[in-house]
Amino acid sequence: MLRRHKWLLAMTIMETKQNNLDILQHSASHILAAAVLEMFPKAKFSIGPSIDDGFYYDFDLPRNLVLEDLPVLEEKMRAIIKQNLFFEKKEVTVAKAQELFKKTKQSYKIELIKDLIKEEKATLRQAQGKKVTLYTAGSFVDLCRGPHLASTGQLKPDAFKLLTIAGAYWRGNEKNKMLQRIYGTAWENKTALETYLKLQEEAKKRDHRKINQNLEIYMASEELGRGLITLLPNGAIIAEELEKWAKETEKELGYVRVFTPHICPEKLFKTSGHVPYYLESMFPPMRMSEKSKDEKEVFYLKPMNCAGHHLVFKSKIRSYHDLPMRIAEYGAVYRYEQSGELHGMMRVRGPIHQNDAHIFCTEEQAGEEFQKVMDLHKYYYGVLGLTEKDYFLSFATKDPKNKSKYAGDEALWEKAEKIALQYIKKTNIPYEIEMGGAAFYGPKIDFNIKTVTGKVFSASTNQLDFFLPKAFNIKYIDKDGKEKTPVCIHRAPLGAHVRFIAFLMEHYAGAFPAWLAPEQVWILPIASRHEEYANKIAQELKEKNIRVIMKNESETVGKKIRAGEQQKIPYLLIIGDKEIAATTVAVRQRGKGDLGPVKIEKFIEKIAKEIEEKI
Amino acid sequence: MLRRHKWLLAMTIMETKQNNLDILQHSASHILAAAVLEMFPKAKFSIGPSIDDGFYYDFDLPRNLVLEDLPVLEEKMRAIIKQNLFFEKKEVTVAKAQELFKKTKQSYKIELIKDLIKEEKATLRQAQGKKVTLYTAGSFVDLCRGPHLASTGQLKPDAFKLLTIAGAYWRGNEKNKMLQRIYGTAWENKTALETYLKLQEEAKKRDHRKINQNLEIYMASEELGRGLITLLPNGAIIAEELEKWAKETEKELGYVRVFTPHICPEKLFKTSGHVPYYLESMFPPMRMSEKSKDEKEVFYLKPMNCAGHHLVFKSKIRSYHDLPMRIAEYGAVYRYEQSGELHGMMRVRGPIHQNDAHIFCTEEQAGEEFQKVMDLHKYYYGVLGLTEKDYFLSFATKDPKNKSKYAGDEALWEKAEKIALQYIKKTNIPYEIEMGGAAFYGPKIDFNIKTVTGKVFSASTNQLDFFLPKAFNIKYIDKDGKEKTPVCIHRAPLGAHVRFIAFLMEHYAGAFPAWLAPEQVWILPIASRHEEYANKIAQELKEKNIRVIMKNESETVGKKIRAGEQQKIPYLLIIGDKEIAATTVAVRQRGKGDLGPVKIEKFIEKIAKEIEEKI
Repeated sequence: MLRRHKWLLAMTIMETKQNNLDILQHSASHILAAAVLEMFPKAKFSIGPSIDDGFYYDFDLPRNLVLEDLPVLEEKMRAIIKQNLFFEKKEVTVAKAQELFKKTKQSYKIELIKDLIKEEKATLRQAQGKKVTLYTAGSFVDLCRGPHLASTGQLKPDAFKLLTIAGAYWRGNEKNKMLQRIYGTAWENKTALETYLKLQEEAKKRDHRKINQNLEIYMASEELGRGLITLLPNGAIIAEELEKWAKETEKELGYVRVFTPHICPEKLFKTSGHVPYYLESMFPPMRMSEKSKDEKEVFYLKPMNCAGHHLVFKSKIRSYHDLPMRIAEYGAVYRYEQSGELHGMMRVRGPIHQNDAHIFCTEEQAGEEFQKVMDLHKYYYGVLGLTEKDYFLSFATKDPKNKSKYAGDEALWEKAEKIALQYIKKTNIPYEIEMGGAAFYGPKIDFNIKTVTGKVFSASTNQLDFFLPKAFNIKYIDKDGKEKTPVCIHRAPLGAHVRFIAFLMEHYAGAFPAWLAPEQVWILPIASRHEEYANKIAQELKEKNIRVIMKNESETVGKKIRAGEQQKIPYLLIIGDKEIAATTVAVRQRGKGDLGPVKIEKFIEKIAKEIEEKI
Repeated sequence: MLRRHKWLLAMTIMETKQNNLDILQHSASHILAAAVLEMFPKAKFSIGPSIDDGFYYDFDLPRNLVLEDLPVLEEKMRAIIKQNLFFEKKEVTVAKAQELFKKTKQSYKIELIKDLIKEEKATLRQAQGKKVTLYTAGSFVDLCRGPHLASTGQLKPDAFKLLTIAGAYWRGNEKNKMLQRIYGTAWENKTALETYLKLQEEAKKRDHRKINQNLEIYMASEELGRGLITLLPNGAIIAEELEKWAKETEKELGYVRVFTPHICPEKLFKTSGHVPYYLESMFPPMRMSEKSKDEKEVFYLKPMNCAGHHLVFKSKIRSYHDLPMRIAEYGAVYRYEQSGELHGMMRVRGPIHQNDAHIFCTEEQAGEEFQKVMDLHKYYYGVLGLTEKDYFLSFATKDPKNKSKYAGDEALWEKAEKIALQYIKKTNIPYEIEMGGAAFYGPKIDFNIKTVTGKVFSASTNQLDFFLPKAFNIKYIDKDGKEKTPVCIHRAPLGAHVRFIAFLMEHYAGAFPAWLAPEQVWILPIASRHEEYANKIAQELKEKNIRVIMKNESETVGKKIRAGEQQKIPYLLIIGDKEIAATTVAVRQRGKGDLGPVKIEKFIEKIAKEIEEKI
């Protein structure tokens, strides 16, 4: 997902900077609240956290806000900034805080205090004595853990902006009252704010859902089912190019391929631990007893290919000679995502086609195999134009406080995390640690890309897994004749196809390199007398497997060129009397404009090289 | 499925011959029953029909039969044949028949008479007067519609054989008594019987489940779920070769490709008619309400790709310029088959990967498109070594007696059947008519292959469909500016991947042509000092995309050659001192033996040509 991981903050080299920004955003939300309190003295306040690149605050107000309120509130915020009020921190007892918020009729805050008490599992009497922190800036007092800026003056008056208004249910529950949320963003200085806003503009232009309107990559509708994606012909071309590329690459690297079913019996998911640990993210079950009283099986759409690949490994006796065994599949998996989380092709329920594979190897081989997987990622991303500066790893470990989320025994987890971290360090790729983000069966190593618009795209997930091979009781015969349990590396460098295509749409702003472009060449005959020659050229290109479209609608060439540019076609070939006489084509290259007349063989050579070498 | 269609009998040029064989088989079953009556005077008789290439009879006997009983019964049958007893046909009233079978204590026959009465929906009194036919040969009297041979002597004593014994529940219901079934086969003469038995032997050898033990093409187990197939690495290679071939071929023919989800909401299946008409063959539903109270959708695994492709067509406004639009997909579908019907890879529940496509065209274009589809079938099968003598069409029409099985209005059906028959006649491919075999939405045109062992393999199904485009309300703008409904041709020439691979395994008896063979070349160095050169050769072959395996286990070359032959490897390259000195390889070609020393370039040229041209 396009997100900035909160947990990254604690571990990165950017730690201070990021943390400061977080404090800035959070403080801005308090200043906003103070401004709202000025405008609506009877306003009630709910919560106002910092979020990715911004903040919000939820209010219960006597009237509906309109967009015109935002500049007024901004002015009030600037006035508060000018006053340079201290963010005063005070520790008080729960009883004292309750009293205060009762007096100011802040019923949401009172409920929040109740939540805190519940969390602490304290008795009411114990709870009353507990301390909570309040932050005060001017007349606005908030229940808040902090930290905050020292004073409101530390926020620059030209370095923040209120962005929009939205409705939000109290506690996110539709049974509760709908509150009004104001979104804003705040930065260290005006330049940083402007950069951010510009990137946001750019991100909007690059939004794959917007690009899709021109390029017809995919289709998604309530009629087809929420979160379910159909790749239209243009999208299918991109998907198949990626698939071909991955298959060729992985064949060279010694992967074998399989096809496993899209559904899997519940008992296998119990073995793997998906039931119960991953059940929430799975589609509802199919019960065979509804078909026949003799069948008791319950099937699930598979959310991952792990179980099938473990069974393939297990289908015959394996020896150390057979390892590493790299089992790959273009499997399509399905995951149940909350409908509010769905987002175009970026976050879907399915089909999630992946260039998935599970590498079964000995413990001794695991380090080298892991390194190869990382090298493979670098190769893929390099071809797509990403350099080492554009990506980093995140290492998702177990949450030591929430043991019920994970399968397998403690010792295995400790081992897996220790070894994984060791391997990660060896790759020399920058990394960060995400406490509590592990898969239920082992630590995850995400490969993250920083996108053109500054977001972090979590491109693929890798796992070093000691648990599933043990759970499936799979073995190999080692040199010493003894049965041993292999290690399993889960990997899918191009992630989910649809999501990766969405990323590429945004990454290239729709201008796919020739090898990926659904339509590589348009041929534009100027008049109908040029069509015969144009057809001949088209035929020649087709024979070289170039995707070419004849544009012989009765429109001006100028209009067709503009259409081609809008559609981001890599090459437009214009054909008129001159070109026929000279047996050439007039080439317009996307982004470079008119290249002038070119012999057709030369053009074919040029584009074929670009396609072959994925330039 | 491997089956001989009963319904074909009425329509084919082989009509008389086939019908005679059917009568012969059925008469043999009566002679068997008469022999059993001699052996067990208290035997009770259930049913004894002719089946594909044979017959059986179910008995309730005082003791369990053993295989040694079969030659004894055959002898008794020969004695009955020698007596040349007439098959005497008698029409009697139901009352009379009941009386007779009560006297002989044939309780199953009495129950069968009751069934007849029920079928007629007559009152008991009316029923008593109805006539049934009895056939008598010697002392054995049977309730039977016939027809039969004139006399037992018309069955040649050396032209039949009892094959095996099996248990079979009365009426096929496990709650009833288990009877004993004897299977047999009968032919016009000894030669025909021997030919049949030889083909049966051959068919057993070619059984894909048997071949799979050596070739490791697929895996199926109760653990994975009944009828669910996993293609192992060797099977995946074959599947991907077929897929690549179909994609290349269909790209040239102007197909576009899409990816649609594997699941589809119920309401779309209601539009298409799959619910209710095809529901029986679909997996049980997934109810989203089990995930969230806000979601009411019910999803089904798709049994066909039709709905998704119709929606792709509908995703934008189409004009007559866009037609024919040929939407292709390697979709994986799932169908619920009764567990008793499942058979290796021949009859599965899924995943059924198909080179599926739906061609949307105008009514005027439909004839030409249909012809192109038939030509495509001929092309595919031609490459696989099948000539025009090896296949025929069957035209499955509506059952006029069972209207509830079909969607759409009468007029559309009449039109579709008339036009389809017209197109079929134009193809000049022999055809047969299957009354009542249509899909619920239109007549089916099956492409059938006669296999090496004489069975009929229904390879693919085509449909000319006027119904679904109307049901989905899809339109195109015609030349005259008016909206019109296109026709849809459903087609999947290579059928279900797994089934087609099973057919190819049996067709080639595991000896796949080089382009399809999972392992194309084995390299056998004679001693370890030859391994370096062998590795160099292997590398050269791999660079040419040839699938090569190094066999450097410490075994004799003789043993490795035998293993290679058992595995049906197209080429074995043996490398020793002589070969290194002369920079050659010693080539053994499957089926041809030793080709002697060959320069490696020459060998690469030879095999590359075979692969390229799919020889």
